[in-house]
Amino acid sequence: MWKLLWSVFFSILLTSGYTQDQDSGDAIFIRKIYDKVLTDGSAYQWLNHLTTQIGGRLAGSPQAAQAVTYTRSMLDSLQLDTVWLQPCKVPYWTRGEKEDVHIVTPAANITLPALALGNSIATSTAGIQAEVIEVKSLEEVEKLGTDKIKGKIVFYNRPMNPKQIRTFNAYGGAVDQRVNGPSQAARFGAVGTLVRSVTTLHDDHPHTGVMVNKEGITKIPAVAISTNAAEMLSKMLKEKQVTVFIKTNCKTRPDADSYNVIGEIRGSTHPDEIILVGGHLDSWDVGQGAHDDGAGCVHAMEVIRTLKQLNYRPKRTIRCVLFMNEENGLAGGLAYAKASNEKKEYHLAAVESDAGGFTPRGFSFDAENEIFAKKFLKTQDWLPLLEPYGLALNKGGSGADISPLKSQKGLLIGFRPDSQRYFDYHHTETDTFEAVNQRELELGAAAITSLIYLIDKHGL
Amino acid sequence: MWKLLWSVFFSILLTSGYTQDQDSGDAIFIRKIYDKVLTDGSAYQWLNHLTTQIGGRLAGSPQAAQAVTYTRSMLDSLQLDTVWLQPCKVPYWTRGEKEDVHIVTPAANITLPALALGNSIATSTAGIQAEVIEVKSLEEVEKLGTDKIKGKIVFYNRPMNPKQIRTFNAYGGAVDQRVNGPSQAARFGAVGTLVRSVTTLHDDHPHTGVMVNKEGITKIPAVAISTNAAEMLSKMLKEKQVTVFIKTNCKTRPDADSYNVIGEIRGSTHPDEIILVGGHLDSWDVGQGAHDDGAGCVHAMEVIRTLKQLNYRPKRTIRCVLFMNEENGLAGGLAYAKASNEKKEYHLAAVESDAGGFTPRGFSFDAENEIFAKKFLKTQDWLPLLEPYGLALNKGGSGADISPLKSQKGLLIGFRPDSQRYFDYHHTETDTFEAVNQRELELGAAAITSLIYLIDKHGL
Repeated sequence: MWKLLWSVFFSILLTSGYTQDQDSGDAIFIRKIYDKVLTDGSAYQWLNHLTTQIGGRLAGSPQAAQAVTYTRSMLDSLQLDTVWLQPCKVPYWTRGEKEDVHIVTPAANITLPALALGNSIATSTAGIQAEVIEVKSLEEVEKLGTDKIKGKIVFYNRPMNPKQIRTFNAYGGAVDQRVNGPSQAARFGAVGTLVRSVTTLHDDHPHTGVMVNKEGITKIPAVAISTNAAEMLSKMLKEKQVTVFIKTNCKTRPDADSYNVIGEIRGSTHPDEIILVGGHLDSWDVGQGAHDDGAGCVHAMEVIRTLKQLNYRPKRTIRCVLFMNEENGLAGGLAYAKASNEKKEYHLAAVESDAGGFTPRGFSFDAENEIFAKKFLKTQDWLPLLEPYGLALNKGGSGADISPLKSQKGLLIGFRPDSQRYFDYHHTETDTFEAVNQRELELGAAAITSLIYLIDKHGL
Repeated sequence: MWKLLWSVFFSILLTSGYTQDQDSGDAIFIRKIYDKVLTDGSAYQWLNHLTTQIGGRLAGSPQAAQAVTYTRSMLDSLQLDTVWLQPCKVPYWTRGEKEDVHIVTPAANITLPALALGNSIATSTAGIQAEVIEVKSLEEVEKLGTDKIKGKIVFYNRPMNPKQIRTFNAYGGAVDQRVNGPSQAARFGAVGTLVRSVTTLHDDHPHTGVMVNKEGITKIPAVAISTNAAEMLSKMLKEKQVTVFIKTNCKTRPDADSYNVIGEIRGSTHPDEIILVGGHLDSWDVGQGAHDDGAGCVHAMEVIRTLKQLNYRPKRTIRCVLFMNEENGLAGGLAYAKASNEKKEYHLAAVESDAGGFTPRGFSFDAENEIFAKKFLKTQDWLPLLEPYGLALNKGGSGADISPLKSQKGLLIGFRPDSQRYFDYHHTETDTFEAVNQRELELGAAAITSLIYLIDKHGL
C-alpha cells in the first residue's frame, strides 16, 4: 500500500510543475551558501578564539566581557548596517576554589568528583558533613518527609534514560533533580544536596548547571557528582550508612553590567520584519563553552557573514544576536525581548542554535497556537530544497533566549543537530574546542543560513 | 502546492488503514531492539577488546589472527546454531621500520609525515632521492609524458572536494590518485610517488590505504603524506625545484592462511534464504581499526546477539560474517562468494557496515537491474517504522566484501552512518577506540538489527 501511495504522491509531484523555476534558483543559492561556508568559512576560527583564547565565559566574569568585546569587533569587521551592544544586568556567580566532596570512612576518604551547581550557596568554611539519603525523584523526597530527610544530605540519582533516541528528551526527563532538587530537599530540612550528573556517559567528569533557590526556602549547598561517583555511592548505600563531607567556595556577587552583542543587515523592502539568528555568548566556567554555546554564536555570526559575502541583499532585516546569561538567569534574552516589545518590533522568525556544533538534522518550529499551522505549513514547501542536505523540519521547541519573543506571534525555530554526543560535553570540562568537528560545525552554519535565506526570500 | 500534496498524501494514509496491526507489532519489536542494544549491548566492549587489546589487524598479521580467535570465541558464546571459520589465503604485507620521507634542502632536512601505501614495494636500503613534480590527476601524468616524468618523484595533490556533503563521494573523487597513481607514474618512468592523504582534514597525520601495482608495469615505491605536508610541499614547488628523499621498509611476504569468521542462526521456515550481516575484521596496521572496521564487526555481532537474546526465532537464516582482507585484497569476500556459489546458496539480502560507528542515517540499496525496483520498493513499506529512528532508505552502494554476492540476485545493502568524521580517522593512527562514541555505535547496531528483522519477517 505504501508503494502505491508513494507512486501516487510522486506522480502528482512530477506533473504538478510546482514553482520549478523559483525552486531551482533557490537550490542554486543554497548550494552557493554551502560552498562558501565549507570552503571559506570563519566559524571554526572564531570558535577557536572564543574557546582557546577566552575560555569559559560565565555571565559577569572577565571572560564574558572579553567575549563581548571580541564578537563585537568581529561583527564590526563584517560591514553590516549596524552593530551594537545591548545592556543587561546579569547575576555574577563564581565557583571559587575547587570543591572538596568526599565520602567519610574510618579507613580513608574517597573523593567524589564534584562541581557546585550554579547559583548554589557555599558551605560554611568548615564544610558540612552528614549522612546521605538516596532518592530517585522530587516526589520521593516529599514522600519520605521531614522525618527521614532532616539533617541529611539528599542524593538525587535518577539517570538520564538511555532509551530515548533524542538525548534532549532524556535530559528533560532528568534535569528537574538538578534545577529544583536542592530546594525540594531543603523544604524537608536537608542540609545539602548531591545530584548525579545529567549525562548518559559513565565517567568521572561532573557536569554543573543551574539550580534555582526557591523563594522562602532555606538555601542549601548543592553539587553535581560524576556518574561513576554516583554509581559507587549508590552501591555503598545499599550496604551501609554513608557520611559525606562537602566544602564549596562559590559566591553570588553583586549583579554586573553586561551586554547582548547584536549586528544586523537592514531589509530592503520589509525592514520591519525581523529575522533573528542567535546563540548565547555566556557558558559555564568549566571547560571552554565550545558546543554550549560557542558553536551557536559562531553559527549566528557565520549566517550574517555568509549572506553579506555572497552579496545577498535581504528583503527583511536579518539580525544576529549573541545573548548573555542564558545559563544562569536569561537576563540577555529577557532584556532583548523587553526592548524589542517597547520598540514595537515584530520578529517574523527567530532561530536559536543552542544544541551544539554537530551534524545538522534539521529544525524544530514553535509559535502561538493560532498561527503555528499556517507558518509551519509554509516551511514544508522548502523540504525538497533542504532534504538533500539531510535536514528535516518538525514541530518542537526553539531556544531559551528567543522564547520571550513568542508573544510577537512570529515563528520560533530551534536548530537541531545530531544529539548523541551533546550531553557528553554539556556543562563539563571536556566541552572544549577539540570536541567540535570543523565540518560538522560548518554544515550547521550553512543549514541555518539556508533556512534564513528561504524565510527572507519567501516570507512566512 | 506542497501543502496540498502533503495533505492529500496524509489523508490517503490516514484512511488507508495500511496493515496497521502488523505495523504496530513491528514497531514494538523494533523498540525492543533499541532498548536492548542501548541498555545491555556488547558492541562497545567487544570493540574495546578488538582495538585496545588487539589493535591494528592487517591481513596475515598476528593481530589479524588474534582477532579471528577472539571474535570466534565471542560468537561461540552466543549459542548460535553454527559458528565456523572459513579459510582464505591472504596477501601479507608489512610496513617494517618507520618511513623516512623528507625534503632535501641545503640548510636542513624537512620531514614529511608519511606512510607507505599498502602493497607498495620498499625503496632500496639506500632510499631514493629525486626531484618532485606535482600533478593533480592521472591524466595530467599522461599529458606530461615521459619527458617530464622520467626519473622524478610524482606528487599527486588533488584534495578531496570539501563541497561534497557526503564525504564518501569526495573520497571517491580523489582516491584514484592513491590506488592507481603509482602505476600511472611508473608507466612514464617515475621513480617514486607521493600522494596527498585522502582526507578533508588539514593536519599532520598521513593516511595510508591500498595501491595497485598494475601488471606489466615497473613497481615503484609509493607513500602518502599528510595534508599539511602536501600543502607545504606544493607551496615550495611554486617557488623552486624540490628534491625529496624516500626510504620505506615495507615487504610483501608469502601469502598467509587466514579466515572469515562466521556465525548463524538457521531459519525456521525459509532456511535457504540467507540474510547476511557483516563487516571486515582486518584493518590497517596504523591506529586500531576502530571505525574501519571494528565498528562494522561489532555491529554485525550485535545484530545476531540481540535477536538471539530477544528470543527471536528467524524465518530465514541470519548469518554474521566477519570478512578478512578487505583492505588490501578482498580475499575473504571473494572466498566467501566462491564457497557460497559452489553450495548454490541464495543470499536474499546482505548488509555490510563499513562506514564507521557514527550516528545512523539509513541504508543504501543495490541489486542487479532487473530485480532492484521490486525489492527496493518493498523496503519503502518500512519507512514509517524506521524514520522515527532517523533512518532513510535510498538507492546506492553496499560494501566491498558483499559485492561479489550480487550475482545471486539478492539485495545488497550498505549501512550509512553520518559521514562527516569518517575520513578524519580513515587509515590513520587516530582511528582508535576513543574516536568511537558508545551511543552512536549502539544506535548503528540497533538500526541494522531492525532492518534485518524486517527483511526476515516480511521477505523481499
